[in-house]
Amino acid sequence: MYAQLVEDFLSQHFKKTPEIHSLILDAVRYSLLQKAAKRFRAGLACLTAEALGGQTQKVIAFAAALECVHTYSLIHDDLPCVDDDDFRRGEASNHKVFGEATALLAGDALLTEAFSIIAEKYSSKPELGLKLVSTLSRAAGMHGMISGQIRDLESHEKKLSEFDELRLLNQQKTGALIMASIEGAGLACGASVQQASDLLQFGLSLGLAFQVKDDLLDHPEDKGTSYTSFMGEKEAQLYLNQLTEKCLEHLSGWDQKAESLREMVRFNLARKN
Amino acid sequence: MYAQLVEDFLSQHFKKTPEIHSLILDAVRYSLLQKAAKRFRAGLACLTAEALGGQTQKVIAFAAALECVHTYSLIHDDLPCVDDDDFRRGEASNHKVFGEATALLAGDALLTEAFSIIAEKYSSKPELGLKLVSTLSRAAGMHGMISGQIRDLESHEKKLSEFDELRLLNQQKTGALIMASIEGAGLACGASVQQASDLLQFGLSLGLAFQVKDDLLDHPEDKGTSYTSFMGEKEAQLYLNQLTEKCLEHLSGWDQKAESLREMVRFNLARKN
Repeated sequence: MYAQLVEDFLSQHFKKTPEIHSLILDAVRYSLLQKAAKRFRAGLACLTAEALGGQTQKVIAFAAALECVHTYSLIHDDLPCVDDDDFRRGEASNHKVFGEATALLAGDALLTEAFSIIAEKYSSKPELGLKLVSTLSRAAGMHGMISGQIRDLESHEKKLSEFDELRLLNQQKTGALIMASIEGAGLACGASVQQASDLLQFGLSLGLAFQVKDDLLDHPEDKGTSYTSFMGEKEAQLYLNQLTEKCLEHLSGWDQKAESLREMVRFNLARKN
Repeated sequence: MYAQLVEDFLSQHFKKTPEIHSLILDAVRYSLLQKAAKRFRAGLACLTAEALGGQTQKVIAFAAALECVHTYSLIHDDLPCVDDDDFRRGEASNHKVFGEATALLAGDALLTEAFSIIAEKYSSKPELGLKLVSTLSRAAGMHGMISGQIRDLESHEKKLSEFDELRLLNQQKTGALIMASIEGAGLACGASVQQASDLLQFGLSLGLAFQVKDDLLDHPEDKGTSYTSFMGEKEAQLYLNQLTEKCLEHLSGWDQKAESLREMVRFNLARKN
């Protein structure tokens, strides 16, 4: 249900106005509103809110901003000068449909609008709003995603030699935004110190579990940056099982309201794409 | 003096830490801290603060964020898939030094860090901080710079036929961020309704004047998107003179504290690059 709420929000935010050039709107909507999008990060924010007994409504705008940042990162990753991927989520990648320049700008627009959305929707709670800007920008910026992306590019040239390097790469590239999804929801729903600490540990393990599962699905054996190539498929599956257990342990003191969040962890273990 | 303050701030913010990959830091600093940068937008913010009798210190972080957004836009503009420029400010453009993928990410990092800087430095004044995020993201996003950039790309294929189209393109591509520089300083220094209205009109005229001057310096006669090609050089110079007068008129009710801001308008009229 949260997925529909977030998609409705995004569809409403990215709508035609006289100022906005229709081409950029088409390009943004093409990638942002794809049916195959899992809405994993938006879901984490919404289900963390639910686990904390907060209303989903409190985090919908933040969840939408997360999806903007995630989608921007996919569009830029797919560009010829980075991964040069022609397909994404089973459809032509953004630049194959709209051309490179427009795809570049669509990514730029999504990143920028993520902050516009927060500024607009949390204007009545500015302290929370500014903290959400901080959480999101720190995760997406050079302390998080961007440095992870650079490490990933570098690993194409020079294979990683240490497991810790692989972990840092993944913690920054995918883990940081996953953690921000959970942390932001904690801020919005007034998590206690103990709850925030549980959520932090939970987010760390889930970020890793998400990446290991991705690697198990993609089997990128030829790349030096996958858990499967580093430890073999069998070991990677065991590692995923352990991480999944860890995630659930961090929520062991939480009541029934955290059940959907636990379900999300099991969903990651079982997902087929 | 403000230029030095802003550069010191930026140099301090973009510094080595264990988390940040050194390559992204090098790429960001290369473009962000170039000696030939005019710091026009940072200057506008600082001198608007001065004109309002506010302390420059109140807007330094915002001015730094403006320079991040401006620099990101230059790096992405220069990429082969957009303008394919090998030089910027008399030096090799970012992607010629660091490669396209890193340049793309350096731009992404700068855009993201602009919001991190605001979130961090205005955390004790969250209402102001969130308004600055709103002002900056709206100017940089699809209501402003991004749509202007799309219109610019489009005009390479199909010449603009109306003067209004040219004006809208430039208002969005360069005018929006110039206006945001002034508006943000007004917010930070508590401009009155009358002052904010004067600043808005001033910013509108100055944004146009800045672009006309750029066109007069660049002589891009072959492009359909320059004032010089639209109205001829002589007319464009007259138009610039008129806009300069208008800028000064909007500040006619302002006292001696606005003298440096007026000086900025005259600087634009006389600048050689």
